[in-house]
Amino acid sequence: MTARSDLEVILVGDELLAGIHGDTHLEYLGRAFRRVGVRVARAHIIGDSVDDIASLVGQRRGETRALVVTGGLGPTADDITREGVARALGLALEFHEPSWTSIQDFYSRRGKQATDNNRRQAYFPTGAAVLPNELGTAPGFVVESGGTTVFVLPGPPEEIRAMVEADVIARVRKLFGCTPLRVETFRTVGVGESKLISLVGDNLGALTAYTVSSLPSTTGVDIVLTQAAGVTDRSLLDAEADEIERVLKKTIGSHFYERGERSLTEVLGDLLARRGETVAVAESLTGGWIGKQLTDVSGSSRYFLADVVSYSNESKIDYLGVKHETIDRHGAVSEETCTEMAQGIRCRTGATYGLATTGIAGPTGATPNKPVGLTYIGLSWEGGCVVKRVEYSGTRDGVRRRASDGVLWLLLDRLTDS
Amino acid sequence: MTARSDLEVILVGDELLAGIHGDTHLEYLGRAFRRVGVRVARAHIIGDSVDDIASLVGQRRGETRALVVTGGLGPTADDITREGVARALGLALEFHEPSWTSIQDFYSRRGKQATDNNRRQAYFPTGAAVLPNELGTAPGFVVESGGTTVFVLPGPPEEIRAMVEADVIARVRKLFGCTPLRVETFRTVGVGESKLISLVGDNLGALTAYTVSSLPSTTGVDIVLTQAAGVTDRSLLDAEADEIERVLKKTIGSHFYERGERSLTEVLGDLLARRGETVAVAESLTGGWIGKQLTDVSGSSRYFLADVVSYSNESKIDYLGVKHETIDRHGAVSEETCTEMAQGIRCRTGATYGLATTGIAGPTGATPNKPVGLTYIGLSWEGGCVVKRVEYSGTRDGVRRRASDGVLWLLLDRLTDS
Repeated sequence: MTARSDLEVILVGDELLAGIHGDTHLEYLGRAFRRVGVRVARAHIIGDSVDDIASLVGQRRGETRALVVTGGLGPTADDITREGVARALGLALEFHEPSWTSIQDFYSRRGKQATDNNRRQAYFPTGAAVLPNELGTAPGFVVESGGTTVFVLPGPPEEIRAMVEADVIARVRKLFGCTPLRVETFRTVGVGESKLISLVGDNLGALTAYTVSSLPSTTGVDIVLTQAAGVTDRSLLDAEADEIERVLKKTIGSHFYERGERSLTEVLGDLLARRGETVAVAESLTGGWIGKQLTDVSGSSRYFLADVVSYSNESKIDYLGVKHETIDRHGAVSEETCTEMAQGIRCRTGATYGLATTGIAGPTGATPNKPVGLTYIGLSWEGGCVVKRVEYSGTRDGVRRRASDGVLWLLLDRLTDS
Repeated sequence: MTARSDLEVILVGDELLAGIHGDTHLEYLGRAFRRVGVRVARAHIIGDSVDDIASLVGQRRGETRALVVTGGLGPTADDITREGVARALGLALEFHEPSWTSIQDFYSRRGKQATDNNRRQAYFPTGAAVLPNELGTAPGFVVESGGTTVFVLPGPPEEIRAMVEADVIARVRKLFGCTPLRVETFRTVGVGESKLISLVGDNLGALTAYTVSSLPSTTGVDIVLTQAAGVTDRSLLDAEADEIERVLKKTIGSHFYERGERSLTEVLGDLLARRGETVAVAESLTGGWIGKQLTDVSGSSRYFLADVVSYSNESKIDYLGVKHETIDRHGAVSEETCTEMAQGIRCRTGATYGLATTGIAGPTGATPNKPVGLTYIGLSWEGGCVVKRVEYSGTRDGVRRRASDGVLWLLLDRLTDS
C-alpha cells in the first residue's frame, strides 16, 4: 500500500489513544512535507510501549523511504521511543557527552539544574546523527537502516517545529530530491459541503491536471487541488486552477474568500490594513472567540481595536450603550439588542466596523420562544447596519463556531463588496 | 502487537495526511471507549483511496475484535470508505430505501432538497446494520466479518459523537462485556513536566496498582493512573490514588487543581458559583482567549460578567480607566498598566475578581527593553491586587496560552487559599 518513495509518520503516546488530548503533529508535518513535494502516505498512532514501537518500526523498515517518529523522548520512564527504535534496528544505545552538556546548559541558562532523569535523553542509537533541540531538553536523531531513513523527534509542538525547520526538511528534500507538488487551496465560508459540491462538482469533475478534495476546515469548507501524477504542463495547471477560481467567484461570490493558505482572519486583516480601516467586536455567546481569532494574526493591533465580551445585561448597557428598555422589551437575544451592540462598540471605540453576536449557545438557556442555537449576528458601519437572525444546530461548541464564522463573513462580504 | 480483545481506529482522509487540518476524532473516541473500559490499542490514518482502505481493513480483519472507521461517507466522489470496506470484506453494496427517505427528509426539514450525490449515502454492505444519523446526511453502519466487528462512522465531529453516544457505545460494551477500567487523572497547571516528575516521580514509581503516564494537557500537565492488568483489589486502588493526591497537594499546592476530568475553567466556575462570586477579565495579548475558555463552560453566565479585550491604548483608557500618564510613563506592557487594568475591569463591572493580561505575544512588537514573551498577569479583588512579571518562551500561540493559563492560576490560587 505504500511505495518506497513515500514517507510515513508514527505518533507515539498513550495519551493520544486514551483520548487525553488530540494530536497536532500530523497536521503540521503533513503541511511541512507537502510544501517540499513529499506526501505523507500513512500515519500510525501507537502507545508508549517498547514492544509496540519496536514491532511497528521493524515492520515499516524497508517498506517506506522515510519514517518520522514523534514523541516519547522525554525524561520519564514512560518515554521509551529511543529504546524501541534502537531495538527495531538492532542497534545499541550510546551515551553522547555533547548532548548531555547541552541539556545541562539548557537548564542552567534558566537558573535550574538538570535532573538525573534527563541523562536518559543523551543516549542515541549507534551511528545516529543528533538533531539539536534549542527549545527543550530532548535532542532528536536520524539514522538510516535497510533503505529507510528514520527520523526521531521529541513530542512538544514547538520543539518539533523548530527541529523540522532547522534540519529535517533539508534532509527530507535531499533524500527525495523532488520538486514541490503544486497544491491549490480554495477556501470558502458559509456554504455547506453538499451544497458547494452540487454547485461546482461538475467543474471539479472535469479537471484533468489535479486530484480534488473537498474538506471541512477550521472555517468553512476548503477545496484542495493537488497536481496529479505525471502532469507537468504548467499552462494546463494554471488554466485549470484559474477556471475553478472563476467558477467559485461566479457561483458563491464572497463566500469564496481565499485562493491560498491564509485563514479568514488573515484575509480580513489584510483587507482592513490595506484600507486603513479598523474593527471592534461586541460578543455575547461567542465569549471572546472572535477576538481570539482576529488576534491570532501577528500585527493585528494595526486594525483590531477592542472586543467587549458582554455576557451580563449590565455589561451590555454599561460598555456598549445598549438601552435598558431594549433588553427589557426584546430580550438580550434579539435583533434590536444585536443592532445596538454592533453600533455601540463601533461608536465607543471609533472603529470603522462594529461586529456583534448574541444568542443561545446551549445546552442550557433556551426559552419557549428562543431555542438553543438562535443567534443574531450584526455588522455596523457609519451609515448602515446589517443584522441576521440564524438558527444554528449542533453542540455548544458548534453553535459558537458557526456564529463566529457567520459574523466574520458579514465583515468580509462588506469589505469585498464596497 | 494487538490482542484480539482490543479495538483499533482507522481515520480516513487525505486532508489529515496533507496537513489541511488536524484530527479530533481519536481524542473523542479514545475517551469514550476508555470510559467503558475498552482500550484503543492502535490507530491508523490513511488517505481517501479505495485501495488503501480495502487493504488496511482486510489486513486488520481477524486481528482485532473491533475496528472503528471514520470519515469518507460524504456525498462526493472522494468519499469512498463504504466501497473500500465492502471490498475488504467481500460484500456487495445494497441500496437501502429507508435511509434514502431519511436523507431526503433531512433536507426537506431544512427547506432544501437532497441532490443526486446524496443517493450514494444510502448504500450499505450486505448484512450491515444501519446506524441512523440525526445530525447529518450520512448514516453509519456496522458489520461483522471474520471475528471482527467493523463500525463505519461519518466524518463530522458532531455526527460521530451523536452516533457513538446513541448506538456505538452500547454495542461495544456488549461486544467486550467488560467493566470499566479505573482511570485516575490528576491535573496540574504552572509546573513543567520535568520539575513535576522530579518532585513526585518516586511516589509514582512506587505504585503497584496502576500504570502511570504524565502528559501535557490543554492546560498544564496531567498525571494519569490507569488500573494495571490483573489488579482487582479496590482498597489498594483507593489507597494508592489517595496517596498521590496527598503528595501532590503537599508538594505543589494549588498548582494541583483537579482529581478528575474537569478543565481548569470548569473547576474555577464551580468554585465561583459555590461562593456566589463573579469574575471579569481585561485582556491584551491573550486577545479573548481567557473569555473564550471561561465561556466554554455551559452556565458560565452565573459568574462570568464581561471581558474587555483592550488591544489599543485608547480602549485601555476608555473601557478600563487606565490612566493616560500610566501608559505614557510605563508603557502598555508594564506592571502599572496591568494593575490598573485588573482593578479597572473589576470596579467597572462590580465583579468580585478582575483578571488582566498585557504583554508581547510576538513575533513582532518587541523593543530593546521589552522582549517577545514579556508578560504581566494580574488579579484584583476588593482590598488587594497581585501582579506577576513573567517571560514566556515559545511561539505566539505558546506565549498566549501560557499567559492565559498563568492568570487563571492566579485566580485559582486565590479561590483555594481564601
